[in-house]
Amino acid sequence: MKKSPVKIAVIGYGYWGPNVLRAFNETGQAEVVMCCDLKENKLQIVNQRYPSIKTTTDVNNLITNVNVDAVIIATPLSSHFALTAKVLNSKKHVWVEKPMTENSQQAKQLIKLAAQNKKIIFVDHIFLYTRAVSYLKQFIRDGNLGKAYYFDSIRINLGIFQPDSNVIWDLATHDIYIMCYLLGGIPKTVSAYASSHIKAGLEDMAYLNFTFDKGISAHIAVSWLSPVKIRRTLIAGSKKMITYDDLETSEKIKIYDYGVSIKKSYRPESSTTGHQYRTGDIHSPALESREALQIAAGHFIDCINYGKQPLTDGKEGHKVVKILEAASLSLKHGGRIEKILK
Amino acid sequence: MKKSPVKIAVIGYGYWGPNVLRAFNETGQAEVVMCCDLKENKLQIVNQRYPSIKTTTDVNNLITNVNVDAVIIATPLSSHFALTAKVLNSKKHVWVEKPMTENSQQAKQLIKLAAQNKKIIFVDHIFLYTRAVSYLKQFIRDGNLGKAYYFDSIRINLGIFQPDSNVIWDLATHDIYIMCYLLGGIPKTVSAYASSHIKAGLEDMAYLNFTFDKGISAHIAVSWLSPVKIRRTLIAGSKKMITYDDLETSEKIKIYDYGVSIKKSYRPESSTTGHQYRTGDIHSPALESREALQIAAGHFIDCINYGKQPLTDGKEGHKVVKILEAASLSLKHGGRIEKILK
Amino acid sequence: MKKSPVKIAVIGYGYWGPNVLRAFNETGQAEVVMCCDLKENKLQIVNQRYPSIKTTTDVNNLITNVNVDAVIIATPLSSHFALTAKVLNSKKHVWVEKPMTENSQQAKQLIKLAAQNKKIIFVDHIFLYTRAVSYLKQFIRDGNLGKAYYFDSIRINLGIFQPDSNVIWDLATHDIYIMCYLLGGIPKTVSAYASSHIKAGLEDMAYLNFTFDKGISAHIAVSWLSPVKIRRTLIAGSKKMITYDDLETSEKIKIYDYGVSIKKSYRPESSTTGHQYRTGDIHSPALESREALQIAAGHFIDCINYGKQPLTDGKEGHKVVKILEAASLSLKHGGRIEKILK
Amino acid sequence: MKKSPVKIAVIGYGYWGPNVLRAFNETGQAEVVMCCDLKENKLQIVNQRYPSIKTTTDVNNLITNVNVDAVIIATPLSSHFALTAKVLNSKKHVWVEKPMTENSQQAKQLIKLAAQNKKIIFVDHIFLYTRAVSYLKQFIRDGNLGKAYYFDSIRINLGIFQPDSNVIWDLATHDIYIMCYLLGGIPKTVSAYASSHIKAGLEDMAYLNFTFDKGISAHIAVSWLSPVKIRRTLIAGSKKMITYDDLETSEKIKIYDYGVSIKKSYRPESSTTGHQYRTGDIHSPALESREALQIAAGHFIDCINYGKQPLTDGKEGHKVVKILEAASLSLKHGGRIEKILK
Repeated sequence: MKKSPVKIAVIGYGYWGPNVLRAFNETGQAEVVMCCDLKENKLQIVNQRYPSIKTTTDVNNLITNVNVDAVIIATPLSSHFALTAKVLNSKKHVWVEKPMTENSQQAKQLIKLAAQNKKIIFVDHIFLYTRAVSYLKQFIRDGNLGKAYYFDSIRINLGIFQPDSNVIWDLATHDIYIMCYLLGGIPKTVSAYASSHIKAGLEDMAYLNFTFDKGISAHIAVSWLSPVKIRRTLIAGSKKMITYDDLETSEKIKIYDYGVSIKKSYRPESSTTGHQYRTGDIHSPALESREALQIAAGHFIDCINYGKQPLTDGKEGHKVVKILEAASLSLKHGGRIEKILK
Repeated sequence: MKKSPVKIAVIGYGYWGPNVLRAFNETGQAEVVMCCDLKENKLQIVNQRYPSIKTTTDVNNLITNVNVDAVIIATPLSSHFALTAKVLNSKKHVWVEKPMTENSQQAKQLIKLAAQNKKIIFVDHIFLYTRAVSYLKQFIRDGNLGKAYYFDSIRINLGIFQPDSNVIWDLATHDIYIMCYLLGGIPKTVSAYASSHIKAGLEDMAYLNFTFDKGISAHIAVSWLSPVKIRRTLIAGSKKMITYDDLETSEKIKIYDYGVSIKKSYRPESSTTGHQYRTGDIHSPALESREALQIAAGHFIDCINYGKQPLTDGKEGHKVVKILEAASLSLKHGGRIEKILK
Repeated sequence: MKKSPVKIAVIGYGYWGPNVLRAFNETGQAEVVMCCDLKENKLQIVNQRYPSIKTTTDVNNLITNVNVDAVIIATPLSSHFALTAKVLNSKKHVWVEKPMTENSQQAKQLIKLAAQNKKIIFVDHIFLYTRAVSYLKQFIRDGNLGKAYYFDSIRINLGIFQPDSNVIWDLATHDIYIMCYLLGGIPKTVSAYASSHIKAGLEDMAYLNFTFDKGISAHIAVSWLSPVKIRRTLIAGSKKMITYDDLETSEKIKIYDYGVSIKKSYRPESSTTGHQYRTGDIHSPALESREALQIAAGHFIDCINYGKQPLTDGKEGHKVVKILEAASLSLKHGGRIEKILK
Repeated sequence: MKKSPVKIAVIGYGYWGPNVLRAFNETGQAEVVMCCDLKENKLQIVNQRYPSIKTTTDVNNLITNVNVDAVIIATPLSSHFALTAKVLNSKKHVWVEKPMTENSQQAKQLIKLAAQNKKIIFVDHIFLYTRAVSYLKQFIRDGNLGKAYYFDSIRINLGIFQPDSNVIWDLATHDIYIMCYLLGGIPKTVSAYASSHIKAGLEDMAYLNFTFDKGISAHIAVSWLSPVKIRRTLIAGSKKMITYDDLETSEKIKIYDYGVSIKKSYRPESSTTGHQYRTGDIHSPALESREALQIAAGHFIDCINYGKQPLTDGKEGHKVVKILEAASLSLKHGGRIEKILK
């Protein structure tokens, strides 16, 4: 039986909000009925594009609207906790942008609140819904990588300064989520280095080191202060190596065949260790081009319609916040190695 | 007055030795007269290519040869100190591959030995002699970068395992030298993270964080275990940003014009900090294509002929070893921040 | 005085129509009031996205609607003439996709019809409105290129087969327009080679050679059957060379400084001609990121509001059709050189 | 039984000669004993690099030297015929650079002369000996391409002007050879367009169109007047598409899986032809890195030692000259389609 459209309201029509609104509007299973933003000029754009959507600068107009089933929160981080709590308490489902909250305590409270109100929290860790990350997850799950060695990710560009997040909370959030998802766990430790070159006290570039079980290491570099835009992850294991370049259109993922062997002729006086690489073929799988946001929106609607838990639920959001929190603590203590509890 | 050719002997005809030998041979100001390697098959190659060069497996044959003015040491790191000392004591000039020695104590001793014997030590920090690094040095010296913000370098590939150096001593040596040369000083602190995935105890990937005076930060990533080869440095300052991609042939250096300004219309409730980037033109200077090794060889000969001190002399070599040593100490203490004394 | 919004109707909601509709909708100076497509499923998408736009499968509903000021024709080529004529005769302005018509006779008739009805024909040669082509036009107009030597353009990909246009009419139309605009005239001759590999009689790859006055040569390669997507134009003159890569985001245009000089030491027995290149710096100008379609839509509205003639008017459209016609004639005669009358 | 080294003499130590000399020197199966060049300064370089090689400015010193078994001719095209004839008549084997001669009549004469003197002519169509072209030949021979559709090659850069060859004879020679080798035959027709922008009468850019049996088309673009260096060949067939980028180091060859299918739902009024592409995975085979010139030199020596005919013998050289000749004829007649006899 076809479900009637889910009624959606959007809070925040800044950078990302317009994309989420459009994505829901085009699922055919949802209807965006309201949009709230503090800036009138943003709402004028909504009126122009979607004359049938009601607009308001007062978030209470959404909260009290009994026709609204679910609310999208696409506002700065500092408002996530209060808004999400408000939405859940008004018995509506919530889609909140990443990172979920400013600290893990808040995240825990929201998980509890959602359970009490029997509503869904969806945290928009959008990369889970990309075809590239799905492909890599399946590839690793099937054992093709062999024993995992490392995860190394770079996400840099001449970036937008956030008012209430440094570059770690803004950009590294993505890489932390992808790292945990692909390696299938959370890191044991983190240490963080960062610097602020443009605005005192607001880190604009950072380097994070992680250790995992079984000798797996990870490194994430993020920056708002790079002349070039790079979004590239390297993953290596005992069987294959992978590059995942999110800016590539036709060859986003490349799988490298390679091997390390001990040279038979190795003698102690040799100028090498006797280890020798064999490079092999490169394979780039075709990926379906469906937009991640469409897939995520469809998944959220499904969860609402059929009472399912989202893949990126509150627990997942909490996990990422816990890691970000530990990274911030390390930063505060000059790069001290912080343990992350499971 | 034209000088008679400098008589050169080479120790080590492995990976880099053949390049240095060829470079000296083609200066027209030097004559390579002897070559020593422990492996007979390497010497056979020398015989085939240069029938007039004498070959030997016994290094003493070079040391005692009074016709030899200068010796090239292109052997694994662990032999640098003993061989360099031996050459200096035999009253010959020495060109030693980088890094100069296994520890800074040895480097100091060699500097002393060279002074006592009135001979030159040239440490082959080859990047100083590239047109790219020269260009950047001049660019920064002229004040075009503005206040320096950061130096970020990546040097990764599917690499050759060294028998007696980890990836930091092998690869990061280059970036450390370039960093010090371009920023004009040595870092205040270093912290290092590394991991060993192929051979226990031999680090095959590493990340180094440095701090300098005036808030300048630096980061170096090196790896022998990458599916892709990257040699790229980013440098940013208050006026310009720079990319230096050593694998590029036609656009090795790019200078990015950009700016950060405070938006006039900035209001506290805004969703950004009020900082806003302006991206500008990109300029890629034409670089002379002369080979760095040719330039270095010519400089070494000049120093011998005219009693000059090389740009990359023992002191420069010592400085790099001191930093590598501090990085190793940090590594040993789990990434502890180590001070580097000037 | 602010003008009241121009009322727009769109015919054809296939590949390009949605983009044009959206662009007009967002100008703030126009209101899209109707949309016509033969396919119901396309109209359903319109209803979903823009509930306030009326939809119809009968084009006469647009033509007879007195509230419509201007009509966008985004249908296959074979319908351009009849639809454009119908729109003009109904006293409405018209925006027609490129190429304007199937033959130059039709184009002339439409120009006449527009004059008779005192309405505007805008032909959507969209590249004129890109920042890249504007920059290049200004660069060449200012004499920076020197004497023009050649124009060489490649536009290939794994393409969409058109029902009623071969690859020349589909893709080369863009390059022909850019070529004429930048070189400031129309070619003297054309010869065309093409082949049909997938569907008999429908050329899927083609090569066009052009000659201009003053020894300028041009070449255009187009294909629907390429494994890689390329959109690159090379232009050279006596002072500079240019690459224009439309798929590049940050360095769309590069200006190459170079020179050719006669070697002083040239002797007849030399193994070269005595000509020698000097390569110089590369400069990549920052281009404003405003969307071409927005600029074009704004220009069309301006022309309507203030009675101006569009930059890409019927005459421009006619010129391109005349060249395409000559290319088709050459093709028919096995690559014969065809003259193009001014 | 190990053969004694073949004694080699080299004529021409300009651009390519040094590479060939070095390659033979390093085979271990040949000994370069003499080198001739008209320029004293070139010979000084030889003396410096290879003190044991005799140098001369008089070619007769080579010809009359009974110790010389084979001669390398690496001189400008205009001297190929006379020098090759002279060498063959002196009962020596010959390796001549491409193209073999200035016209096909000369090529035929040399084939005859070689037969009469029972000596080998090796024409240096070096690409046959590259791992990339070998791989592609095998790939196509095994039927993996399916029915061949087209061959499209670009070879452009800011080039060296040749004294006695235009850009077609200089650069297109390579692509013509690769095209014939991979497609397994010679074209039925050629038409050529070219222009001279720097030196009157010397074509510096050219476009060649070819037709083959079974509807296969080919196109070659060459230029000495391009701001960027490109060496890229596209080949498509009914099963796969190929890119071969000779400037790529790690992914020289890419094989694209794709398909064209007829849409089931195709209706005449549809806006497409009902043909629809499916793009698939990309595969880049690892290629052995052995240098082509080494392989070619080894093959030449083998042919001499064991009386074999080279893969790139006089007949192959003649075939290419015949095609170049037809292209020149077409050029002379303004792009007329010229038949090429088998």
